[in-house]
Amino acid sequence: MKEVAKLLGYRESVKVVDATMRDGGLVNDFYFTDDFVKKLYQTNIKAGVDYMELGYKASKELFDVDKFGKWKFCDDEDIYEVIGDNAEKKVKLAVMADVGRCDYQNDIRPRSQSPLDLIRVACYVHQIPAAVHMIEDAKNKGYEVSCNIMAISAAQEADVRAALQMIGESPVDCIYIVDSFGSLYPEQLARLVDVYMETATKHKKILGMHAHDNQRLAFANTIEAVGDGVDWLDATYAGMGRGAGNCTMENLLGFLRNPKYQLYPVIKFIEEEMVPLRESGLKWGYDIQYLLTGIFNQHPRTAITFTKENRKDFTEYYKELTAQE
Amino acid sequence: MKEVAKLLGYRESVKVVDATMRDGGLVNDFYFTDDFVKKLYQTNIKAGVDYMELGYKASKELFDVDKFGKWKFCDDEDIYEVIGDNAEKKVKLAVMADVGRCDYQNDIRPRSQSPLDLIRVACYVHQIPAAVHMIEDAKNKGYEVSCNIMAISAAQEADVRAALQMIGESPVDCIYIVDSFGSLYPEQLARLVDVYMETATKHKKILGMHAHDNQRLAFANTIEAVGDGVDWLDATYAGMGRGAGNCTMENLLGFLRNPKYQLYPVIKFIEEEMVPLRESGLKWGYDIQYLLTGIFNQHPRTAITFTKENRKDFTEYYKELTAQE
Repeated sequence: MKEVAKLLGYRESVKVVDATMRDGGLVNDFYFTDDFVKKLYQTNIKAGVDYMELGYKASKELFDVDKFGKWKFCDDEDIYEVIGDNAEKKVKLAVMADVGRCDYQNDIRPRSQSPLDLIRVACYVHQIPAAVHMIEDAKNKGYEVSCNIMAISAAQEADVRAALQMIGESPVDCIYIVDSFGSLYPEQLARLVDVYMETATKHKKILGMHAHDNQRLAFANTIEAVGDGVDWLDATYAGMGRGAGNCTMENLLGFLRNPKYQLYPVIKFIEEEMVPLRESGLKWGYDIQYLLTGIFNQHPRTAITFTKENRKDFTEYYKELTAQE
Repeated sequence: MKEVAKLLGYRESVKVVDATMRDGGLVNDFYFTDDFVKKLYQTNIKAGVDYMELGYKASKELFDVDKFGKWKFCDDEDIYEVIGDNAEKKVKLAVMADVGRCDYQNDIRPRSQSPLDLIRVACYVHQIPAAVHMIEDAKNKGYEVSCNIMAISAAQEADVRAALQMIGESPVDCIYIVDSFGSLYPEQLARLVDVYMETATKHKKILGMHAHDNQRLAFANTIEAVGDGVDWLDATYAGMGRGAGNCTMENLLGFLRNPKYQLYPVIKFIEEEMVPLRESGLKWGYDIQYLLTGIFNQHPRTAITFTKENRKDFTEYYKELTAQE
């Protein structure tokens, strides 16, 4: 059981990362208006959020720029134009770079020539050597760097340990536990944090948590993680994110006790921007199809298709998911 | 940290209580159709649910029978008519009886003359002596009896301990932790379970958990509770319940490992009955107004009014909730 002091007090090392534009961008193909982005940036500053993830640095070889909004690519010029140079750094700016889907050597400039502060390298367990290359590249360019190992609920513990050893020996700053399938229960997560913490302690790394809400546990798992010593916490406004969405910013800032965090600006942004976004027809958040992929520890892609097709035949979907052939 | 065996194995003593008609009845004034009730009853049997709560035994002196559906009163005759005599007891039948709002001496017959099995006595901490009278009455009539102490997040620990001592000395079978405001975090709940467990151990009582989803923690708190030794777990189909609703049956049966519990019938009932119920205009479930009453540890009644009035001005509501005068 955690100490009472952990609930009523706070750790200075805890940081909140707003992933609305990156994980939420998977819902609307990154078509956020400039006004939305400017207002989100100002809201994050008022709310005391520590990092704001703007989207992906996706390869323009692999992805058609005409089929996505600009935040899938996060050109420095676009960031300067919409947000400015962010010289005061009241909130640090981040992008995600996927292993195998980012032309990082060309597209990520030295930090001194970029508005960005943090590169989040995303990979699966089997891609760690490639991730380490990207981590070293970003670190050499002067960035803070995290490594977000995805779909961890479907990985073997022995593989996770081997991956952590390689990542631990890299110059990365923060290692993320990413429950991409929203499949972990808090008790399982606590054991996983133990495994990650061995590496974090040995190699002096920060730990991070990125949760999905398939089983309505994104917030619960995030506060389980912070109670277990995880410092960087991802959240999104109104939980906007792929499929069942993420830990909501409003839940998280209502929980954290560091007085720098302010809930009111978050509620205001939800009222003024997120409710209209949802009413415009964008769909995300908990529903039965996501619960089922979470329970069965599967990638949510079939549930996302189910949602897009406006299907409501949960029983047929249940049979599809559990078909043995 | 809990043992792995607790997640992969199961305790025979864990029981699931379907509270859809009772807590969900607060959403539709207990106007469930007979067809709905019959189908829910059959579904509970197929799903392996242990107890089905049909509604309240409310006083007809205090409440106008013309303004509520019959499940606010749960006359034995109505139960016989819709469900039958339930002679096989594949799922046990329960009602809730509120202290001060139930004519229990007249309206609750001896168990041998009733289809009911369990009387759930609901009270606040300051009503324990009256609750003990009701517990004794029901026990003398042959029922299983629980005591559901409500709004526990707003009670003083010293009062809770005094209440538990009185309840512990009563003939009650099960003592419920009821997070009426959906305000408890899992860490706080774990400490509260410790307090209840002292009484439970000393007086050989079962513990129960009834959660609300204001902070999206109803399921998380329910599985925290079962991991801490709480045996009776309340859930409702699609979370239907007052305000933010309850721990969902589909989450809970997806988690429990006792092979008698079956998820598929639950999904089927949601598809066929709960989705249409929601589409008919009934409103329940997590939203910002409920999050705020949860965070501020307040009764959800103002949030329910906010919902009924179709208000969306969360910032004004935030100011109303936090007004100092």
